[in-house]
Amino acid sequence: MRVGDKSYRSIWLTDDGRSVEIIDQTRLPHEFRIVSLQSLDDAAHAIREMLVRGAPLIGATAAYGVCLGLRDGTADLDIERIGKQLISCRPTAVNLRWAVERMRSCLLPFPEDQRVEAAYEAAALICDEDVRVNEAIGTHGLEIIRKIYKKKNRDEPVRILTHCNAGWLATVDWGTALAPVYKAHEAGIPIHVWVDETRPRSQGARLTAWELAAQGIDHILIVDNAGGHLMQHGMVDLCIVGTDRTSWTGDVCNKIGTYLKALAAKDNNVPFYVALPGSTIDWRIESGLEEIPIEERSEDEVLWIQGKTQAGNIESVRIAPQEPSAANPAFDVTPAAMVTGLITERGTCSTGRDGLLSLYPEMEEGI
Amino acid sequence: MRVGDKSYRSIWLTDDGRSVEIIDQTRLPHEFRIVSLQSLDDAAHAIREMLVRGAPLIGATAAYGVCLGLRDGTADLDIERIGKQLISCRPTAVNLRWAVERMRSCLLPFPEDQRVEAAYEAAALICDEDVRVNEAIGTHGLEIIRKIYKKKNRDEPVRILTHCNAGWLATVDWGTALAPVYKAHEAGIPIHVWVDETRPRSQGARLTAWELAAQGIDHILIVDNAGGHLMQHGMVDLCIVGTDRTSWTGDVCNKIGTYLKALAAKDNNVPFYVALPGSTIDWRIESGLEEIPIEERSEDEVLWIQGKTQAGNIESVRIAPQEPSAANPAFDVTPAAMVTGLITERGTCSTGRDGLLSLYPEMEEGI
Repeated sequence: MRVGDKSYRSIWLTDDGRSVEIIDQTRLPHEFRIVSLQSLDDAAHAIREMLVRGAPLIGATAAYGVCLGLRDGTADLDIERIGKQLISCRPTAVNLRWAVERMRSCLLPFPEDQRVEAAYEAAALICDEDVRVNEAIGTHGLEIIRKIYKKKNRDEPVRILTHCNAGWLATVDWGTALAPVYKAHEAGIPIHVWVDETRPRSQGARLTAWELAAQGIDHILIVDNAGGHLMQHGMVDLCIVGTDRTSWTGDVCNKIGTYLKALAAKDNNVPFYVALPGSTIDWRIESGLEEIPIEERSEDEVLWIQGKTQAGNIESVRIAPQEPSAANPAFDVTPAAMVTGLITERGTCSTGRDGLLSLYPEMEEGI
Repeated sequence: MRVGDKSYRSIWLTDDGRSVEIIDQTRLPHEFRIVSLQSLDDAAHAIREMLVRGAPLIGATAAYGVCLGLRDGTADLDIERIGKQLISCRPTAVNLRWAVERMRSCLLPFPEDQRVEAAYEAAALICDEDVRVNEAIGTHGLEIIRKIYKKKNRDEPVRILTHCNAGWLATVDWGTALAPVYKAHEAGIPIHVWVDETRPRSQGARLTAWELAAQGIDHILIVDNAGGHLMQHGMVDLCIVGTDRTSWTGDVCNKIGTYLKALAAKDNNVPFYVALPGSTIDWRIESGLEEIPIEERSEDEVLWIQGKTQAGNIESVRIAPQEPSAANPAFDVTPAAMVTGLITERGTCSTGRDGLLSLYPEMEEGI
C-alpha cells in the first residue's frame, strides 16, 4: 500500500538480500519509522515488543527471523533453538507457531549448506501467499460492498464500521477486513469508514485511521461506545471486522468489543461480515465461546495510554487512580448466529455447520 | 461520602455563610483539590469548564451561582441576567435550566432586600432534596441487590457493572446508580463493581474508580469493550446505570455506550437496571430514540486524553494521527424493552406505558 509517494509492504527483504525491514508500529501514527532486522534477536525483539503485530505479519516476521538466525548456524539443533526463541516471544500467537513449524519442516530436508537460501525462498513464499490470499478476500468483499452501493443514491458513500486494525499493517499487504475497502476504493465506489478506537491498545485510532488516511479514504474516528448509536440512527451500512481464530461453525474470536458491535448490528439489521484467511479457521473447534481460550493481557494496557503531547513528545499517561487494578481480556467471541457472512479467499459463505465446509470441503473428514 | 477521614458532599456552603466550595473534578483522580466559588463568574466557570458535572450537581452549583450573583445586585433584571449567564454555560443541560428557573420563581416574590437570604435557603433546599432523593434510590436499589445476594453462595460478592459516573460526585451526595451500591456496602453485602472506563471522557476510570476506592468498595476497571465478554462468561450479576433523561415509557438516554451494555445484558439474561430521580423523567417524550436530541461534543475529547505521566505531571496526549476528524455523540438511547427496571426515589418499576405512571400517577393527565 501507498505511504506518501511510495508503495510498501509491512515487511520486506532489503537489497542486500539478507536483512529485512519493517515499519515500527509502536511509533505509528506519530512517526513512520523503518527498522532494520539484522539478526534473530532483532526479529524476536520486533515480535515481542509488538513493533510488528497482526497474526499474518507476526508469522511473516518469524519466517524471516528463522532466515536471520540461520546465519549463525544451520544445523538441525540450530533450527530447533531458533524456533523456540521465536515462539517464546508471544506464546499464544497461533500464526507464529504455524510459521515456525512450516519453516522447520521445509528446511530439515535440505543439506545444511543450502538451508539459508531455502529459508529465504520459503519466507518470501509465506509473504507472497499472504498477499494473494488477502487480495482475494478483497475481491470477494468488494462484491458485497458493490451490492450495497447499487441500492443507494449514487452520491452517497457506503458507510462501513470496522473494529481494531485488520488492515495491511496487520498482514503483509492488503489486510483482511480492510482489503474489501481498498478494493472498493480502487473500483471508484465512494466509501466512508467509521473507525472504532479499539481500547485498550487503540489500534483503530493509531493504525486503521493512519492506513485509511494514507490511501485517501474518507474516515471518522469514534470511541468504541459510539457504534451502537450510529447503527440505531441508520448511519452504518455494514460492518466488516477481522478475526484471530474462527471455529468451523463460524464463531468468531476477534479483538475485545467485537461482540458488542455484532449485537448492535443484529438489533438494527446492519449486515455484519468477518473477513478471514482460511488459515485462521480452527477446524478442531466447534463452539468458540466454550473452547477458545481468551488471552488476558497486562492491566497496564488499560491504565496507561500513549500519545503525543502538544510539545511533540511521545509520552504515556495514567488515566486511572493509583488504587484500582484492571482486567484486560484481549478478545471476545461473537456467536455465529450474529455473523451475516464470512469472507474468505475462496469466496463468501454463511456461518453454521454447512458454511465454511461449503468452501473448504476437503476439511470435512477432519471434523 | 467519605474522602480519607472526612465526610464530604460534592458542594457545600462554607462557614462564612456566603461562599461555596466544590471539588475540582477535572483534577480527579490525580489530585483532590477543593475550589472556592466566591462570585457568579466563579460558579459559571466551574460549570462551563466542568469542574462540576452530573445533572444534579450542575443544578446545585447553578443555584448557588444565583446566590453569589445576587451579591452584585438583587433587582429583577439582575436575576434575569444571572440566569442567562448560568444557562449559557452548558445550554443543553436540562437540570441547569431547571435550577435557574426554580430559583427565579422562588426569588421574584420576595422584596429585593430579602432575596439574598431567600436564595441561600432555596439553594440549600435544592441540595438537601437531591440528597434525600438519591438516598431513597439507594434504599430501593438495595432490595434488588439483596435479592440477588440471597441466591448466591454467601462468600461470593454481587458483581455489578456500571457505566460512566452516576456516583456521589455527579450529585450532591450518594449518587444515583451508585447509591444502591453504597447502601449494599453499608448493609454488609459483599460487592464487586466492574467499572467501565467510559470513553471519551473516562468518567468511569477517573471518577467512579476513585469514588469506590475512597469508600473501600472492591472494584476492577475494564475498557468499554470488555463488558459483553464478562456477561457471556457469567461474571456479571446485574448492571446499574444512571440516566440524563428518560421518556415516560422508559427509553433511557444515558452516556454513549450504555445501549451496547444493555444489548449484552439482554443477550445473556443479566438484569439491567437504571437508577433515576423523578426529575429526569421527561413526561413530554414518548419515544426516546426519536425525540431526545443527542449532544455532539468536541472531537478533541476523542482525539486527546489527559492523564498523569510517570514523572507526576498531568498532561494531555493525542492518540490519533493528525488527519482524522472524530465524531463524538455524547449519549445514546437504550430502548425500554432492554431495561429490566427503573429505580426511582418512589420505588422500582418496570418500563412500558404503565411503569413510571404507576409510581407517578399524578403525571397521567399531562401525557
